[in-house]
Amino acid sequence: MTYTARELHLVSRPDGAPTADNFLLTERRLQRPESGELLVRNLWLSVDPYMRKRMVDQPSYIAPFGLNAPLEGAAIGVVVESRDASYAPGDLVSHFSGWRDLAVIEGASATRIDPSIEAQAYLGPLGMPGLAAYVGLLEIGEPKPGETVFVSAAAGSVGSLVAQIARLKGCHVIGSTGSAAKAHWLRNEAGIDIVINYNEVDDLTAALTRAAPDGIDVYFDNVGGDHLEAAIDVANDFARIPLCGMIGQYNGKPVGPRNIFRAIEKRIKLQGYIVTDHASRRDALLRDVGQWISDGKIRWTDTIVDGLAQMPQAFADLFTGRNTGKMLVRLDAANGDA
Amino acid sequence: MTYTARELHLVSRPDGAPTADNFLLTERRLQRPESGELLVRNLWLSVDPYMRKRMVDQPSYIAPFGLNAPLEGAAIGVVVESRDASYAPGDLVSHFSGWRDLAVIEGASATRIDPSIEAQAYLGPLGMPGLAAYVGLLEIGEPKPGETVFVSAAAGSVGSLVAQIARLKGCHVIGSTGSAAKAHWLRNEAGIDIVINYNEVDDLTAALTRAAPDGIDVYFDNVGGDHLEAAIDVANDFARIPLCGMIGQYNGKPVGPRNIFRAIEKRIKLQGYIVTDHASRRDALLRDVGQWISDGKIRWTDTIVDGLAQMPQAFADLFTGRNTGKMLVRLDAANGDA
Repeated sequence: MTYTARELHLVSRPDGAPTADNFLLTERRLQRPESGELLVRNLWLSVDPYMRKRMVDQPSYIAPFGLNAPLEGAAIGVVVESRDASYAPGDLVSHFSGWRDLAVIEGASATRIDPSIEAQAYLGPLGMPGLAAYVGLLEIGEPKPGETVFVSAAAGSVGSLVAQIARLKGCHVIGSTGSAAKAHWLRNEAGIDIVINYNEVDDLTAALTRAAPDGIDVYFDNVGGDHLEAAIDVANDFARIPLCGMIGQYNGKPVGPRNIFRAIEKRIKLQGYIVTDHASRRDALLRDVGQWISDGKIRWTDTIVDGLAQMPQAFADLFTGRNTGKMLVRLDAANGDA
Repeated sequence: MTYTARELHLVSRPDGAPTADNFLLTERRLQRPESGELLVRNLWLSVDPYMRKRMVDQPSYIAPFGLNAPLEGAAIGVVVESRDASYAPGDLVSHFSGWRDLAVIEGASATRIDPSIEAQAYLGPLGMPGLAAYVGLLEIGEPKPGETVFVSAAAGSVGSLVAQIARLKGCHVIGSTGSAAKAHWLRNEAGIDIVINYNEVDDLTAALTRAAPDGIDVYFDNVGGDHLEAAIDVANDFARIPLCGMIGQYNGKPVGPRNIFRAIEKRIKLQGYIVTDHASRRDALLRDVGQWISDGKIRWTDTIVDGLAQMPQAFADLFTGRNTGKMLVRLDAANGDA
């Protein structure tokens, strides 16, 4: 018996903004799992901004995606067939063979998830975006109670957690976002008092100065460009700037912060990091953020797109800010997705 | 009895590169020192790139220079008259009332220097440039034996020490400088094997890649601009970039590193600092660098300009790289300087 997987390939490298034309939905015959392997039917697939960087053919911390080969990324699936004694059919696992409906994976590469929690949380606040927020804010940003934290893309999967964790740590929080609906969500659901809609201001530095008259102590950068420049201008002495992502820089001609020299006089630290270096903090994430979610202290939201065929567009939509919270692709066997 | 001091005032704020026209040499009647004060005759005056930033009327870690008022900066002088029991006439002190020949200062603001060492060392390797090199390289750069350290303005007062301390710590050292004479000094006096003359290369990133085929682990930034961008491009994962100065950015239209997003994937830390925050490390500097100099393990050199009237031009010449090592102004009573 064999299975047929439907999977997405990258067929051309995006030049600027990615489009659906860069992808091809195709089929592949899968052999049944061998010893130590699992056959998994995916329920939830993740699209993340960092994937854009893997579409460039350039050495980096993670190999670039090949052309005409299946893409990969975080996914949640259910075990269909197991040749690993640790797993049985019906178990829910998180793994990295996304962008497809069915996958044969090493059991050792999967992580069992708690079925009492909504599965998609493991692609959001309890997954890589959650860990990026938790580690970047707390270990690089080191916010202290009473300090002011500015976070860009504050209604995104990472930013919305950063903003709320900072609030729980006793900080003043300023979030930037690009639409009135997201600003509304941040104010009314996430409890973030000060929200800048960057599409409604001419001068981001001036807007940030008004929002933070006493300056900012931490800037959590998801955007780069004008946001990073404004943050350096408004930063207090000894500010910390975790560099988590620069979604504004991935598709176009990148720009550098022209005021980087002010990092000297202000003794600013800017530090890039990659979440996979911090896997050892995953238990702390599950404990702390899991507790905050079950206590109702942290809200999260998803933007759900149905069907594998819609995944390329869902990915492209990340860069125009169509998502509030985590952008997810949901697969449903009844719709022919598995 | 009164004294007449000759002192330099800033009379206009430089627009771009500073020129001698921005300064005025004038005289002032000094009262004799009161209780706790010293009258000091300056022997050596420091000009430093950071002073350019103080000529801009903008809030910073240190107040901007006023117009039509005496400039200030590091100086070495001899006590002429003392109303502080800790000092006697003839004592050598370092202090901050530079840009003039005579000054009345608080005894508590002066630091006695060791008369067995050349006095001007206290404006260079044993002074603020030395502390900037020592703290920035060792505490922010954290070089490990076998790592590769790149330093810009490597023949300058800070850079030449950074390069040699890195060499003594067992690192491969690459220095950049702007003239053949300075490259010669770095190779033959400072023992720096690999020197890039940035005026002789079209593509600094390509030159740095050839000089450091295995990448760089620390970039000590004195320059900013294209040097910082090249360093980020050639940096290894987890590289450290102490931001000490950006002399290339002070006079013109500043540019940001367009590849700053690579700091994420490479997990680079960039950190600005100000030497006056690290005064507690001065004893360690005097011990370590003092020992290295007396053991002949570190070479240093000065570029000496004679006479207070030449000080504005000496300052301007910093930005065209006329100095090798520390740029100093020497005053001599016989020449009418005091």
